[in-house]
Amino acid sequence: MAYRALSEQEAVQYVKELPGLFEAGAILSSREIGDGNLNLVFHIRDEATGKSVIVKQALPYARVVGESWPLTLDRARIESEALRIQYKYVPDLVPQVYHYDQELALTVMEDLSDHILMRKGLIEGRRYPNFAKQIGRFMAHTLFFTSDLGAHPYEKKALVGTFLNPELCKITEDLVFTDPYENAPTNSFNPLIRREVEEIWKNKPLKLEIAKLKYDFLTRAEALLHGDLHTGSIFVTETSTKVIDPEFAYYGPIGFDIGAVIANLLLNYAGQHGLEKDGGKRESYREYLLTTVEDVWNEFVSQFVQLWHKQAKERSAHVEGLWQSYVKRLIQDTAGFAGCKILRRVIGLAGVADLNSISDEKTRAEAERLALLIGQELILKRGGIEDSTDITDIVRNATTRFDQEAAAV
Amino acid sequence: MAYRALSEQEAVQYVKELPGLFEAGAILSSREIGDGNLNLVFHIRDEATGKSVIVKQALPYARVVGESWPLTLDRARIESEALRIQYKYVPDLVPQVYHYDQELALTVMEDLSDHILMRKGLIEGRRYPNFAKQIGRFMAHTLFFTSDLGAHPYEKKALVGTFLNPELCKITEDLVFTDPYENAPTNSFNPLIRREVEEIWKNKPLKLEIAKLKYDFLTRAEALLHGDLHTGSIFVTETSTKVIDPEFAYYGPIGFDIGAVIANLLLNYAGQHGLEKDGGKRESYREYLLTTVEDVWNEFVSQFVQLWHKQAKERSAHVEGLWQSYVKRLIQDTAGFAGCKILRRVIGLAGVADLNSISDEKTRAEAERLALLIGQELILKRGGIEDSTDITDIVRNATTRFDQEAAAV
Repeated sequence: MAYRALSEQEAVQYVKELPGLFEAGAILSSREIGDGNLNLVFHIRDEATGKSVIVKQALPYARVVGESWPLTLDRARIESEALRIQYKYVPDLVPQVYHYDQELALTVMEDLSDHILMRKGLIEGRRYPNFAKQIGRFMAHTLFFTSDLGAHPYEKKALVGTFLNPELCKITEDLVFTDPYENAPTNSFNPLIRREVEEIWKNKPLKLEIAKLKYDFLTRAEALLHGDLHTGSIFVTETSTKVIDPEFAYYGPIGFDIGAVIANLLLNYAGQHGLEKDGGKRESYREYLLTTVEDVWNEFVSQFVQLWHKQAKERSAHVEGLWQSYVKRLIQDTAGFAGCKILRRVIGLAGVADLNSISDEKTRAEAERLALLIGQELILKRGGIEDSTDITDIVRNATTRFDQEAAAV
Repeated sequence: MAYRALSEQEAVQYVKELPGLFEAGAILSSREIGDGNLNLVFHIRDEATGKSVIVKQALPYARVVGESWPLTLDRARIESEALRIQYKYVPDLVPQVYHYDQELALTVMEDLSDHILMRKGLIEGRRYPNFAKQIGRFMAHTLFFTSDLGAHPYEKKALVGTFLNPELCKITEDLVFTDPYENAPTNSFNPLIRREVEEIWKNKPLKLEIAKLKYDFLTRAEALLHGDLHTGSIFVTETSTKVIDPEFAYYGPIGFDIGAVIANLLLNYAGQHGLEKDGGKRESYREYLLTTVEDVWNEFVSQFVQLWHKQAKERSAHVEGLWQSYVKRLIQDTAGFAGCKILRRVIGLAGVADLNSISDEKTRAEAERLALLIGQELILKRGGIEDSTDITDIVRNATTRFDQEAAAV
C-alpha cells in the first residue's frame, strides 16, 4: 500500500486486518490523540473487552511554529526497530511493538494510556519513587548491550548501519549544539532574558566546550542511544516507567542519554521557582529532584558496571582500571550534555512546559536565568566532576548564587 | 558472472572486453605478481604500446602461516570505493581505478610498477625527500574531507554506512589491540625477547592505556581511514608517493592513520640496529627517519589546519580555540596508536621485514627490544606530547637508554 495518512476509520480497518490483535467481529473505537505536529497517534479500543492498542503513523513533515518542513518517514522504521531492540533488554520499560508497516510508516504498539507523561507529573509536583531505579536499568541495559562492551563487534557495526539516522541527528546537531549559542533564526526565548542570552553568545570558553561536546556527539559511536530521552519521552505511573518515542535513536556517546534525563529533572528544578509558591514545599520538592538526579546516575552506573563485570564480551574490557576511567569520563560527558540540553530548552526552538507554563513573564525569566546558570556551570565545570554529588553541588551552589543575586536586587 | 578466481589468460580476456582500456586486437601479456596470500594481482601489458594495467582480485580466504581462513570478498568493494574517494581528493597520490566488478571481487587499476614498496626502499637505506609532504597531503585531504569538519553530516553518515567493514576491522581489533598484550596463540615473536614480551603482558598501566586506545578505535568515527597505512601500503619513487591497498578502510580515529606511518618509520629506525653496520651511516639514516617523522606530522597538521580554516563547513568548527585543542588531542592519539602498531609488529602475527630481515637472531632481538621500548614509551608518555619533537625526543631518549643498557652488559 502506498503511503497516505490514515483516517480514524482507516486505522480501525487496518488493525482489524492484523492477525492476533482483536477478535473477528470486534467493534473498535478509534480516536486520534497525537498533537499532529509530527505523527498521527490513534487510540484504538475494543469496547467489549477493554483491549486497546496504539497506532502511530509518521507524517511526512514536521509542523513547527505554524510552518511545515519535510521530515523523513524513515523515522518510523528507526522508532520501531529501536523499540524492538530495547524490548529485548528491558521488556517492562518500553511499549511492545505488535506490527510495523514500512510503506505506511506505521507502528502498532502497546497502549500505555494508564500512564502520564513524566513532565506533566513533575509539573504537578508528583514523586516517582521507582523512577531512578527503572530509568537507570533502562539506560544501563540498552546502552551496555548495544555497545562494544556488550555486543559482538559485527553486531555492533551492523546496528550502526541500521541507525545512521542523518535527518533526525541533524535536528539535534542544530537545535541542541549550534543554534542556541549564536543569534540564529530558530531561537525562541523570553525577551526578558536577552541580556543573559547575549552573554552566552559572547562566552568563548563556554562555546569552545559546547563545540567539543558537539564533536563528540558527531563522532563517538558508543552505543545505540534513545537520542531524545527527556521527560516528555517517558511515561510514568506511581510504580511504572515506560520509555517511548525513540525516533532519534542512533549510535552516539552514552552520556547524551543520561544527560538528557538529568537535564530535564533540572529544568523542572529551575521551573519550581515559578511552579511552587510555597517556599517549604518548593525546597522539599527540589530536594526530591536532586536526590533523583543522584539516584539516576548511581542506579545507572551500578547496573552498568555490574553488567560490565559479568557480561562484557570484549576481551580488553577486563583490563585493570578501565571501567573506573570509563565511568569518570562518562559522568563528565553526562554533565556536559545535560548542560547543553538545559541551555537549548531555554534559548532555542522547543521550550519545556516546566518553564513555559509559568504564566508570569518576570517570574518565568527568573526561573530561566537559574536554568541558564545551572546549564553553563555543568558544561564549564564538568572536568572536575567525579560523582553524582558533584553534579548536585553545582546545582546547589548555582541556586545559592542565584538567590543571593535576587536578594541583592 | 559468478565468482571464480581468474587465470592469467582469463584476466587478459577480461580486460580486453572492457571498453576504453586497450585497442581492439592488442596483444596482451599477463603475469600474476601477487603473493597469493590474500589476492591475485595480474600485471597486464600491451607489448606494442607499453600500456599496462593491474587487475587485482580478492581471494575468498587469507592464507596465514600455511593455514587458510575465510575472508570476505566485500573487501574488494571497500578497496575500490575507498580508492575512488581518495582519488577525488588527491588524484596524484593513489592509483586510478578503471573498473570494479562486484561479482568477481575484482578491480582494474593504474599500474604503478615503476614504483617500489617504501618498506623495501627504507630497508635499502634510500631517502625520499618528497614523501613527508606527499603523505601529509594524502592524510590531510582524505581525512579532512571525509570528517564532520569537511563533509556534510548526511554525506558523512552515508559513508560511515558504506565502510562498516566489520571483518577487516576485527583483524585490527585482535591483532593490533588485543592479542600481542596477552599470551595469545596468534603471537609470533623472537624467542630471545620472551622476557621483555612477558613483562609487557604483566604491565598493567600499559595494558590500561592500550585498552583505552582500542576503545577509541572501536568507537571514534572521525574520518574515513585508510586503515592499514604502513610502509608496505605505500609505493614510492624518488619523487612520487602512491598509497595503495585501502582494504581496511573504515570510519575511525584520525590518529590511527598518522600513527601507522610514524610507527613504520620507527620500526625501520629500530631495525637500523641490524640493517646498517656502519655507525656513522646508521646515525645519519636514523636522523633522516626522525626528521621524516617530524615532517610527516608537521606537513599533515599544517595542511589539515589550513583546510579547516578555509573549507570547514561545520559551523561550530570556527569556534575560538577548537582547532588547537583538536590538534593537541590528535598528536597524543597519533603517538598512542603508533606505539600499538610498533608493539604488534614485534610481538604479534605479521612482523615487518625491517626487523625480520636482520639475519642474526641476537642482533635482531636487540633491534626488537629497542622497538618495544619505543612503542611502550609512546603509549605511556603520550599525555605529555604537544609537538612532533616530543615524539622524536621520546625515541631519542629510549635509544640512549637502550645504548647505555647495551654498553653496561
